[in-house]
Order: sequence, then C-alpha cells, then structure tokens
Amino acid sequence: MEKNLIRAISVVFLVFMGGIQSENYVMADDFRPSSVNQPGSEYPKVNESGQVRVQISAPDARYVQLDIGGVKYDLEKDENGVWTGESSPQDEGFHYYQLNIDGASVPDPGSLYFFGANRWGSGIEVPASDEEIFALRNVPQGQIHEISFPSESTNSIKRAYVYTPAEYHLERNRRYPVLYLQHGYGENETSWPNQGRVNRIMDNLIADGKAKPFIIVMAYGMTNEIEFGRIMDFDIKPFQTVLIDELMPYIDSNFRTVSSPSHRAMAGLSMGAFETRLVTLNRPDVFTYYGLFSGGIYTPEDLENHDQLKLVFLSCGSKERPDRIKGAVEELKNEGFNAVSYISEGTAHEFHTWRRSLHQLAPLLFRDLD
Amino acid sequence: MEKNLIRAISVVFLVFMGGIQSENYVMADDFRPSSVNQPGSEYPKVNESGQVRVQISAPDARYVQLDIGGVKYDLEKDENGVWTGESSPQDEGFHYYQLNIDGASVPDPGSLYFFGANRWGSGIEVPASDEEIFALRNVPQGQIHEISFPSESTNSIKRAYVYTPAEYHLERNRRYPVLYLQHGYGENETSWPNQGRVNRIMDNLIADGKAKPFIIVMAYGMTNEIEFGRIMDFDIKPFQTVLIDELMPYIDSNFRTVSSPSHRAMAGLSMGAFETRLVTLNRPDVFTYYGLFSGGIYTPEDLENHDQLKLVFLSCGSKERPDRIKGAVEELKNEGFNAVSYISEGTAHEFHTWRRSLHQLAPLLFRDLD
Repeated sequence: MEKNLIRAISVVFLVFMGGIQSENYVMADDFRPSSVNQPGSEYPKVNESGQVRVQISAPDARYVQLDIGGVKYDLEKDENGVWTGESSPQDEGFHYYQLNIDGASVPDPGSLYFFGANRWGSGIEVPASDEEIFALRNVPQGQIHEISFPSESTNSIKRAYVYTPAEYHLERNRRYPVLYLQHGYGENETSWPNQGRVNRIMDNLIADGKAKPFIIVMAYGMTNEIEFGRIMDFDIKPFQTVLIDELMPYIDSNFRTVSSPSHRAMAGLSMGAFETRLVTLNRPDVFTYYGLFSGGIYTPEDLENHDQLKLVFLSCGSKERPDRIKGAVEELKNEGFNAVSYISEGTAHEFHTWRRSLHQLAPLLFRDLD
Repeated sequence: MEKNLIRAISVVFLVFMGGIQSENYVMADDFRPSSVNQPGSEYPKVNESGQVRVQISAPDARYVQLDIGGVKYDLEKDENGVWTGESSPQDEGFHYYQLNIDGASVPDPGSLYFFGANRWGSGIEVPASDEEIFALRNVPQGQIHEISFPSESTNSIKRAYVYTPAEYHLERNRRYPVLYLQHGYGENETSWPNQGRVNRIMDNLIADGKAKPFIIVMAYGMTNEIEFGRIMDFDIKPFQTVLIDELMPYIDSNFRTVSSPSHRAMAGLSMGAFETRLVTLNRPDVFTYYGLFSGGIYTPEDLENHDQLKLVFLSCGSKERPDRIKGAVEELKNEGFNAVSYISEGTAHEFHTWRRSLHQLAPLLFRDLD
C-alpha cells in the first residue's frame, strides 16, 4: 500500500519534472537488482523512479563515483569500507555506465558487460513499461549463431551473428527472407544480439503471430575504424564490399535464405542507419525494405530510381528529433512511397529506442510474401 | 639479435628455476599486447617469459595491484598518475586475473572478459608453444549456436551453446555424432566456447583431416549452485535430468544428429569431469565415449557393465597428478579397455590443459563410424 503510494507520488513528480534537469524527485526506497547483473550480484540496483544505485567495497579509496549518462555521482563510504550511491532518474531501458575509483575508470564487477563506447563495459537495465517485448517467455526460441566468414577485401576472417527463428530448425526444407541489421558507432556485431535483445523480440513477435519468421544478420559495420570527430569522412565502400560481395554470398550458401531483393531488408541504428542509407542508395538492386533508426532520413528525390522499393521505415526517440522523422515520412507518403514513422516515447539516443524500433519494423517486413 | 639473446637467457633461467617459487628470472623487455585485449588496448601485455604487465590510470589511488595466480603484485605510479607493474612468469595459456585499486577488486578495463570463478572477469593469454592448435586459420569455419531450451524439471528456459562444423551447413542431409562437453566449477556454458576455443580447435583438426566432423553441445552443469567447500555433497540428479531428459531430445530434434549411444560422447573438465563420471556410470546406455579432464578416473570395476563402451580418455596437466591418470589408464588397459591417457606438459589446473585435452580427445572420437 505504502509502496504504491510512493510509486504514485514518484510518477506524478516525474511527469511534472520530465525533461527538466532537476534533483527534485522522490527517492523511492524500492531498489531491486538490475536484470543484467552478474549471477548472484545484489548490486547494481534500480528503483521505480529509474535511479541507479551501485555499491562496491573499496576500503582504502579516497573517492568512488558512479559515471552514467554523462554525469558523475559521488558514493558514500560506510564503516566497513563499502561505498554506496545513486544517480538521478534515468530513462527506461538500457544504459552503459562505469565506476570511477580514485580516478580509474573501471567496469562495475556487479554487472554483466556489453560492447558500446568502443569497449566492453557495464550495462544496466532500467525497467521499461513495455519490457515484455523482450521478456524471456515460454515460447519456441530461435537461435543466435556466431559465424566466421572469409573476407578477401580485408584479408581477414570476420565474425558476425545470425538470428534464426525456432521453426528454421524444424522445417528443414523451408527458405527464409533476411534482414541485415547494423549497430551504431562504438558498438559492434555483439550489440544487437546482446543489449538489442534481437532473439527475444523476434521470438515473441513470431509466437504471437505478429511477425513472419525471417533471418537477421548482424555484422560489424567497421564504424569504429574512424575517429568519432571525423565520422563525416567515413567511406562506406570497404564495408559495402564486405557486406554485399562477401557476407551476403556466405549467408546465402550457409543458411536457407531466399536470395532475392524482394526477400531482403536492411536497417541500422545511428551510424548503422547512416550506413544503411548509403548502401541502399548505392545499391537499389539489393534490398527492398529500408529502416533507419535514429540516423537520418530519405527524401523522395533520394529514392527516385528505387522501383522495387516496398517500405521505408524511419524512427527515433521522442527526446531526439521526432519532427524531422515525421516530416520526412509525410513527404515520402505524399509522393506515393510506402513510408512509416515511429517515435519511441520518453527515450533518447539509446538502445531502448532501437529495440522498440525493431519491434515496430519487424511486423512490416516481408508480410506480402507467402 | 639482442632480443634473441635475452630470450635465450630467459629460457635457460626458466628451465633452471622451473617449479621453484622464485623471483630470479630475467625480465625480458619484449612485452606485447595480450591476444585477448579489448579492441585497441595496448595493455595488458605479456613477455616471452610469461610475465604479465598491466597498466591503468588512477591518479588519486593509494595503491594498485595485479592479482593473478593467487598472488598480488604491486604496481608503481608515474608522474602522470599511471600505474604499471608485472607478475612473475605464468604458465603458458589462459589465466583469469583482476586488479585491486585501493581495496576494490575490479576487472581490468583493458582485457576482454570471461566467465570463471563465478563471475565475468579479466583474462589473459600467455602465448603457448602450441597455440596454433586454436589459431584462427583460413580454413572452413564452423558455427557456435546459442540455443534456449525448455527445462520442465527446473521450470525454466536454459541457455546452451552448440558447435557445428563448417560442412554441417553445406551438406544439408547429413547427420552427425555429438559430444556433450562440460565446464568446471565457477564456470558456465560460455567457458568452453570462449576461453576453451572449441570452434577453433575443431575447425583446425577437421581441416587437417585429423578429426571427424561432429557436433559439440556445451550446457551449464549447474555446478555453481553449491558452495565450493561442499562440492562433495553435489547431487548429480537435477543436472542429469536436464541433460538427458530435456537437452538431449531438444538437440536431437533441432540438429541433424545421429541419436544413438554409438554416436554420443561425454567429457568434462574438473567438476565437469566429476559430472561426466557420475552421469556415465548412472546411465551406461547413453554414451559410449567418456573423457575426464583434470577430474577423477574410472577403475575397471566402475566399468564392469559398460558393454558398449568404446573409449575412456583421462588427462591432466603435468603440474597436477599425472601419475594417477597414467596408473588408472594402465589398469584399464590391463583389463582390456580401450583407454588413453594424456598429460599436458608444463600446465596446471587451468584452461590450457583442457584445450589440449580436447585437441587430443577429438581425433579419437567416432573414428570407427562411417
């Protein structure tokens, strides 16, 4: 009862304070372990307001800080040398973070690790109103395959991940369409299958009859080989060669795909959207469904010669630039394109926006196919 | 020239000092980044003598230590607040380690992370004389599948990993034998595919014609649900139920296996060997190849009723109890069993012993089958 009251007050406060940088929130004392903690770890914890609380034993430290969302929060030490402290409320969904111990930036030993910001580091899950979209449910489960494919153009063997739906392993003569799905800057081929929860999102949609079963290929976009400040100098050609001339033929011979543009989609988040845009514009003959999550738009002029195009999907968080997305989609629709916009309410340029975007895009893919 | 001289001197010293706890080794100044560092990380480094050197910026720390092999080594701080230091020589192969910053035990932000000691933490690779056994070579590459299978007995959906050889994805009507391979205490289903390098070892053996292609299933052995001090109270039944009644039927329906004891092997390391021994003794009808790596033996009496048994493989590191392994295999051979021993030279109860054990066992499996 009391807890519900506190929760209600928190919500009211959050609604009032939403969008304002302020410390005037109610600190509800309902902290629970994050769902992506190390096995058996009590900390980090999260409360209903979205505050993150961390704890670490560091008896001889001068100071310890929680570094999340670009802000450092001081922890306090108890008589046993254990430091505890919390952040202000964070948006729902997944966030990268780290600890600062006497000037050393280190992962929190209590959390699982995720690749983002160009390194494996700590992640936390602030419970989301729609977290059932990626919950582990008792439905048929697909697989995530780690593959290693030869890349002559880069003289290397590259790693990628492939999602196959549950029925792929039972219906052994059936072939499936493919979505190529790209991560953002500072991330890699593990980011979509790990923090993106691709398999859970797809397993649930397929089990509920909301999406057709299809294959998803997640490759490293070679995005991190350029400094962040020089991203606009990024040359798409090396990655485009790996993707289309090397990875795609490998996928088509090692998985039961339908190898035709009508059965192929490409989407990406942030810099992966930037890549998706460039690749689809350079090669209108390869894909027929395009998705950009938090990373650019298409104009009607861009798509003039895209005669086979079936869908353009543009999305972002409500804390990004939603008007730009909506405007671009309106313009495309006016010119007769099948375009869809999606705005993730209450989220910014983070993975929860992109999980939701995939969850919205997937039901629209390949649905005209038998 | 000079470097080779230092290396030669180091080797002579190491041979003389081998096995003696001593600091009298030559510190060869040939430190190179470990092969399992985070992308772009210069540290941790390893030299030819097997010393591990770490470095971290912690300007306000009172002390920083490298914690490896049960020993803590003090680092020294330079004028920029950067701490550097190294361990005494470590055995070749893979080791878990951590940093200690003012009393806080944390992962090294420079390394990749591996599951061992009941948590994801830092790992380092001391170059091994035989590291080509798990090198990434330009040969056909198999896949590692992450699967999620329903377990009624534990009322959960469990994760496991499955290695499939390269040809599995091309020869779509062929069926394959299966090795069930268990991790040790404090590890989990990720340990064999990650630090165990299962896919590289198998891809290379198969490409060289030294092993038949087969499937490997790596499941969580539920080993960590008992305190380390009470391991002898471990009850095998819950895991045996998951393995044989739940996972095995799932594998047989979702992969192209030959579902018969003659095409099924079980092996494990340390506590996974203990599990392998118990499961194979309880259920002589399920497996016909048995492998124990650094964890127990079989006596001829144990195997009295194992009429279909094709192979017993026992191994350990030379720094463990090799005489016990050799003696047990002699005894089994004298009683007419097909038994093989393998001693990993210069290694202890660590993953390099087990990678080598798999590399020795794999060519002996299923070779009588067509």
